[in-house]
Amino acid sequence: MVVSDPIADLLTRIRNATTANHDRVEVPGSKMKKAIVQILKDEGFIRDFEWIDNGHQGVIRIYLKYGPNKTKVISGLRRISRPGLRVYAKRDQIPRVLGGLGIAILSTSKGVMTDKKARQEGLGGEVLCYIW
Amino acid sequence: MVVSDPIADLLTRIRNATTANHDRVEVPGSKMKKAIVQILKDEGFIRDFEWIDNGHQGVIRIYLKYGPNKTKVISGLRRISRPGLRVYAKRDQIPRVLGGLGIAILSTSKGVMTDKKARQEGLGGEVLCYIW
Repeated sequence: MVVSDPIADLLTRIRNATTANHDRVEVPGSKMKKAIVQILKDEGFIRDFEWIDNGHQGVIRIYLKYGPNKTKVISGLRRISRPGLRVYAKRDQIPRVLGGLGIAILSTSKGVMTDKKARQEGLGGEVLCYIW
Repeated sequence: MVVSDPIADLLTRIRNATTANHDRVEVPGSKMKKAIVQILKDEGFIRDFEWIDNGHQGVIRIYLKYGPNKTKVISGLRRISRPGLRVYAKRDQIPRVLGGLGIAILSTSKGVMTDKKARQEGLGGEVLCYIW
């Protein structure tokens, strides 16, 4: 199936899987999605992930994370920039998500990174999504 | 009981009451809290509220709102400005909450209002809280 917005698809699959309390979820692979999922791991939103080579575009298997009593670690995921309406932030206007409670993930000239890292590096970029 | 941050107390009581699926919650009254609760009503986050005169500072009774199957209408509330660390936004830097999914409530020279209204009126102010 051709997905018009693979990043929106990634966020939707994670949202649906956490709502259903699943242990893991798989998504079609891409370099960009791998970079996003790496940040989710680094920031503590997921337990782990692995790249599975299937001879085609690959698959990313994401191991979801929950708190005590299956409470959610990810409260929300929101696509910001979209194929139909790209959203960019200048380096002095990097958004903050819920006053620092969440993160923004940006695609910059030095790769995919969090809002915090972009601010430290003095980089602007495309605002891919918010996670909180 | 003297509460050091009455607005934080208001948000906490609403959060706890919605988590417990209560129909309503009461908080000690104040002009500022009444203005915030009025916005919560106008923006569809609560069903209604009423001011109860008790001969002292008054009480605000808040009627909470839920979606089908007791789903939450309020996902989160977050105090931004605090007595120990006031947070102000200039009129050209009014924050957006989750890209428009939520609201910010500001205290401006023309009263307590949403981020949207402040932007329309060209007003800056103290960023009281985020609701989403």
